[in-house]
Amino acid sequence: MSIEVPAGFVMNGVHGGIKKVATKEDFTLIHCPKGATAAGVYTQNLVFAAPVGFDRSRTPSANIRVVAVNSGNANACTGERGMNDCREMARLAATAVGENEQTALVMSTGVIGVFLPMDKIANGAKLAAEKLGNDEASFLAAARGIMTTDQFHKVVARQVNVAGRTIRLAGMCKGAGMIGPHMATMLAIMLTDAPLTPAAAQQVLKAATDESFNCISVEGHMSTNDTLLLLASGAAGGEPLTGSDLAAFQAALTDACIELAQQIPDDGEGASHLIGIEITGCQTRDAAQQIAKTVANSALVKTAVAGADPNWGRIVSAAGYAGVPFNPDGVGLIVNGHELYRAGAPVPFDAKTVSAAIKSERKTHIKLTFTEGSAVGRFWTSDLNVNYVRFNADYTT
Amino acid sequence: MSIEVPAGFVMNGVHGGIKKVATKEDFTLIHCPKGATAAGVYTQNLVFAAPVGFDRSRTPSANIRVVAVNSGNANACTGERGMNDCREMARLAATAVGENEQTALVMSTGVIGVFLPMDKIANGAKLAAEKLGNDEASFLAAARGIMTTDQFHKVVARQVNVAGRTIRLAGMCKGAGMIGPHMATMLAIMLTDAPLTPAAAQQVLKAATDESFNCISVEGHMSTNDTLLLLASGAAGGEPLTGSDLAAFQAALTDACIELAQQIPDDGEGASHLIGIEITGCQTRDAAQQIAKTVANSALVKTAVAGADPNWGRIVSAAGYAGVPFNPDGVGLIVNGHELYRAGAPVPFDAKTVSAAIKSERKTHIKLTFTEGSAVGRFWTSDLNVNYVRFNADYTT
Repeated sequence: MSIEVPAGFVMNGVHGGIKKVATKEDFTLIHCPKGATAAGVYTQNLVFAAPVGFDRSRTPSANIRVVAVNSGNANACTGERGMNDCREMARLAATAVGENEQTALVMSTGVIGVFLPMDKIANGAKLAAEKLGNDEASFLAAARGIMTTDQFHKVVARQVNVAGRTIRLAGMCKGAGMIGPHMATMLAIMLTDAPLTPAAAQQVLKAATDESFNCISVEGHMSTNDTLLLLASGAAGGEPLTGSDLAAFQAALTDACIELAQQIPDDGEGASHLIGIEITGCQTRDAAQQIAKTVANSALVKTAVAGADPNWGRIVSAAGYAGVPFNPDGVGLIVNGHELYRAGAPVPFDAKTVSAAIKSERKTHIKLTFTEGSAVGRFWTSDLNVNYVRFNADYTT
Repeated sequence: MSIEVPAGFVMNGVHGGIKKVATKEDFTLIHCPKGATAAGVYTQNLVFAAPVGFDRSRTPSANIRVVAVNSGNANACTGERGMNDCREMARLAATAVGENEQTALVMSTGVIGVFLPMDKIANGAKLAAEKLGNDEASFLAAARGIMTTDQFHKVVARQVNVAGRTIRLAGMCKGAGMIGPHMATMLAIMLTDAPLTPAAAQQVLKAATDESFNCISVEGHMSTNDTLLLLASGAAGGEPLTGSDLAAFQAALTDACIELAQQIPDDGEGASHLIGIEITGCQTRDAAQQIAKTVANSALVKTAVAGADPNWGRIVSAAGYAGVPFNPDGVGLIVNGHELYRAGAPVPFDAKTVSAAIKSERKTHIKLTFTEGSAVGRFWTSDLNVNYVRFNADYTT
């Protein structure tokens, strides 16, 4: 995939010194010299990190020029000093590119409860500002700079024709653990050269989130730092999008966010399968999403997929405790195209064939059907592997 | 511990042939020749097993004489045929001890979605009825007959003086996986020779459950088969308990249920730690329980304890997404007596010392303190180990 970076932004990712390995980027800087409209969606955790409170107070905005991100330290549960450090990080980044500190946003991700190493933050800001670019290499360096336990960088790009102009959209995100809606534990930045008002930017971002980043989990633990930003430079030209033009942009943004969001459980810590859960026949979308999320967060379902075990009773019983009323005699289940359960009763199937179908594919598709209505839901999660446990039993020690 | 079995009951556990290993009991029969008052508490899963529906329709009752339990097959998600099999199992067990089939209750536990092997059920009922006893050995055989993936049998006994008489209480339960309130995935039977009306039996059982079996989890997956029965033979003599006598019995029953319930996460599949979570300073008990349960069900908290990793950010952040409002600046955390977090900020501590304190004890005590009120909550869970994943990735295949 080649990425065309939206006009109006320059960026870079560098090693400032927070991560131990000198080849790993840990500081990302994005600069929008003419100012961008900015919107944000944040964790709903009561215990939120300093940069979440900081950005929340500054978005939506009509004039954001700098986004500074560090990985390797979440600046969460760090009290008053954490908030001062966050403010100083915004000042350092803005100063490095000659902007007013009031126009900067900050994101942090990594270990909780450790104070930010401000000398390394300062170093990162200085180094990153030295060679900002609008090319694909700069974009990918920026995407690597926000990674923590990720095995691969996560990016997406789209072009969409709106109101006679080509609008570019490019996004990056990180996240592999502590992932549970709303929001998943992750940082994500969507850049576009579309012209958007702050209100429209906030509205389209929220709608896209509900279909994407709020439909994924790894282990369902909601993070302290989740942040999704949309920056719109307006460099594609024209008046701020409205009506059907805004709707066309909304569709492209949602589509891009879904592609980006799925990369997170696909890279779930230790994961060997990306599990997609499709729910049909519910009374409301909320009901369908609630069932999808409950199935996704069942450790028994996730371990069964890891073991390629067609233990469908775990899937059906998880639906049963989702808190959504339904007729058990109307339930059906199809896994990777194999029907295992129909009208509330088992369908005879060859366990070896279904097990092989799970084992041989990176994606496992679970389709649960109900007879309550016509609403549907979707959710994505990772399987639960011994590698997840090994990894998480020994994170800080 | 020596167990004095309440008067009025005889029992046994035998190998009927459902389990592959001939030395493992898989059928338990309890007989109360003069009839017992019976109460039940059941899974809230919409997808419930045949015996759950069967028992639910027969309790509370003033005249239950037979309880038949099989392990190795849950008779869940088995449709119409499953309900017929359940009825037939009740008939076989009642006939084996010369009772009317209307006085029998049934419990099943094991794999979901496989029809009951009725020849083996018939064999179990016949063999068990041949030598029923009121002694400790018979009670322990009965307790083994309900086990599935349990590493050890789970029993409890109490004596309490009420209204000038000694009342005996003895209980057994099983459960090690698919454990999430309400109820935990488990079967439990409490026997007593106290005289109780059906209404009083149901009331004390419900109250005891809320303090015990509804306060435990292994992985939070609510089962299709959870059943807790209380049988009261009245053999201790006297009128049905009321007022302060009933309250004294209630206290003993709750205490016994808590001791029994804790044995389940202590035997959680692959578990190396029993985690006890204590919450103080909330506005209501419901709020405290909601926070306790959310912390208990965090895979990140459970893996941290498995790895003896004092990663307190995971505990505090789990509380933050419990859905209960609180002031983050008032939160404190103590793990195994070591203060790690106070008034919303980290307390310096020696990571090696705290890690050693977790590693060296089977029990990990997590105490989270809030400043909202005076309500408290308690919850027990197991840690999350690679052995849990290994075990559950390969259960049916």
